[in-house]
Amino acid sequence: MIAVEEAVARIVAALKPLESEQVSLGSAAGRVLAADAHAKADQPPFAVSMMDGYAVRSTEADAVLAQEDARRDGDQVEFTEIARAGKFIRPRGLDFQANSLLVPQDRRLTPRDLVLLAAGDLEHVPVRRRPVIAFAATGDELSRPGEPRRPGGIVASSVYGLDAMITQWGGLPKDLGILPDKPEAIATLAAVECDLLLTLGGASVGEHDLVQAALGPKGLALDFWKIAMRPGKPLIFGHLGATPFLGLPGNPVSSMVCALLFLRPAISAMLGLPPQTPLKQARLAGSLPGNDGRQDYLRATCEWRDGDLWARPFAAQDSSMQKLFAQADALIIRKPHAPPLEDGAAVEIVPLD
Amino acid sequence: MIAVEEAVARIVAALKPLESEQVSLGSAAGRVLAADAHAKADQPPFAVSMMDGYAVRSTEADAVLAQEDARRDGDQVEFTEIARAGKFIRPRGLDFQANSLLVPQDRRLTPRDLVLLAAGDLEHVPVRRRPVIAFAATGDELSRPGEPRRPGGIVASSVYGLDAMITQWGGLPKDLGILPDKPEAIATLAAVECDLLLTLGGASVGEHDLVQAALGPKGLALDFWKIAMRPGKPLIFGHLGATPFLGLPGNPVSSMVCALLFLRPAISAMLGLPPQTPLKQARLAGSLPGNDGRQDYLRATCEWRDGDLWARPFAAQDSSMQKLFAQADALIIRKPHAPPLEDGAAVEIVPLD
Repeated sequence: MIAVEEAVARIVAALKPLESEQVSLGSAAGRVLAADAHAKADQPPFAVSMMDGYAVRSTEADAVLAQEDARRDGDQVEFTEIARAGKFIRPRGLDFQANSLLVPQDRRLTPRDLVLLAAGDLEHVPVRRRPVIAFAATGDELSRPGEPRRPGGIVASSVYGLDAMITQWGGLPKDLGILPDKPEAIATLAAVECDLLLTLGGASVGEHDLVQAALGPKGLALDFWKIAMRPGKPLIFGHLGATPFLGLPGNPVSSMVCALLFLRPAISAMLGLPPQTPLKQARLAGSLPGNDGRQDYLRATCEWRDGDLWARPFAAQDSSMQKLFAQADALIIRKPHAPPLEDGAAVEIVPLD
Repeated sequence: MIAVEEAVARIVAALKPLESEQVSLGSAAGRVLAADAHAKADQPPFAVSMMDGYAVRSTEADAVLAQEDARRDGDQVEFTEIARAGKFIRPRGLDFQANSLLVPQDRRLTPRDLVLLAAGDLEHVPVRRRPVIAFAATGDELSRPGEPRRPGGIVASSVYGLDAMITQWGGLPKDLGILPDKPEAIATLAAVECDLLLTLGGASVGEHDLVQAALGPKGLALDFWKIAMRPGKPLIFGHLGATPFLGLPGNPVSSMVCALLFLRPAISAMLGLPPQTPLKQARLAGSLPGNDGRQDYLRATCEWRDGDLWARPFAAQDSSMQKLFAQADALIIRKPHAPPLEDGAAVEIVPLD
């Protein structure tokens, strides 16, 4: 078993930013800029008045007298203020000048960035191609919601969350559906074209854990496959031929937590973004016992009290509790062998959504 | 002129949640649930073992002995632990029971919610219809980025930000393009089908401010049209026939700030979400002079220091500075007639993106 941080580092080290593509500004929101964007023109493009009023010569037509300081009588205007050169005038290029840097590379473009790039006369911008993340759920017991279930069958629920998270993090999800527990079915994954291949389930040691058995002959080269964490533990990382491969646990809560901790940095790395899952500081509401050798991610609700963020772990942390996971606001990180904590202690959290 | 809070209240009061529509779980991410969602089945659907191991009878087949507590020799297994009824077994319905509430109405669905709804065997969910927000920029001086400009012309930059923000906030943007300063062109807006009609520019008192003149004869009923704020001030709200109408200022920074303060709550109201722009507490980095009678929104950068969020206003706050707006992390709110503030004072901020 390896530590969470080492696993993230190994995954990220195996990935590099994808090539760039040109997109029009109208479809660039949320995309990651692949090169510094420079203005094509000055803004404002010429000197402009700051308000409704009268352009006048202080020496040679270079000032504005405000409407509110004027008394107009037919063609005659009388002013209660004296014109000063440059008054109420925005000089050309006040906001930015042609060729100046508008938005730096490796930034996820906000709506305001788009406004700025448009003002800089940029019609298209280079952005990182979105990584295609293909995923399949494995297991004879799985069906889709609403479908008739076989005896002992359960719903493949993780795929819906995975699809939405991949989109949210900037990837393009490619749902390969549900595969039965047959080596020949799982082996078809070797032919899938994508930037990262994911499986859900089949990563642990039980007799149905066929992923390694089915994909080994197809060229699966393992890097690691167990992580000292809870929920999570069985997680495969390696390459299937040239394609990076991530085998997530089948348990829905475990797979979502692993996606947050390992898939999100992987997508960020391919987009040229910092490959860290953002963490926050909080104070512990309630107390916690000391931890064993696995890094814990405790589902918790958060609230602000007197300017401090407080995180309260649910009493039940069993990995089968999907409802509590949906109701959680954050995961409290408990390092391996962390000592007991009292109410109010400082903790590190992973915010959810 | 009316206060910002009163303007928001009047806009929100004029709007109501839209009707609901059924969507499949696969396209429900980010949508707002229009009715409480209840589970169709127990989860787990039957009692399940918590780990790899051996099902045994403590009295009548109701316990699991863990693999790690077993020594197997051919067909013989010897255990180092005693079976206790229910041990290592998750009872049916532990996570949730059929007909129990999974996700409450009026919640924007997260990836984790989708996992939970799938586990509850829900294939489709009722969500609020996305409000169609139609918008047009007005002005003879406007062109698109990359297009040749007329003398004295500028780029219509706000529309790119507006489009992206409407999508981000849950609406469906409908870009009506650039309209010339001609009453007959602006009057065509009366025929547009949408849930909210927006114009950019033409809302102030200058001679090109034709929006009121052109749409009055088409049935524009004004509610208010000036707000005591900076940047912003000229903002029209009313109805064009039965369609709510919001006239934003033409200045890009002003229009984006007004969209954040007035359009975002409007979209939220139509989605059944709380119609407040989320605010945060921060500490002021630097000092500020006393304010006049208009509510100020100062562009600022933010950073965390020793667990506190600090907001530092840019020295230049001219509404023409689009670059500083793109670089800002938040807007510091300065109430009308607010007193001067020293470094470290508590301020309220509107986080950006």
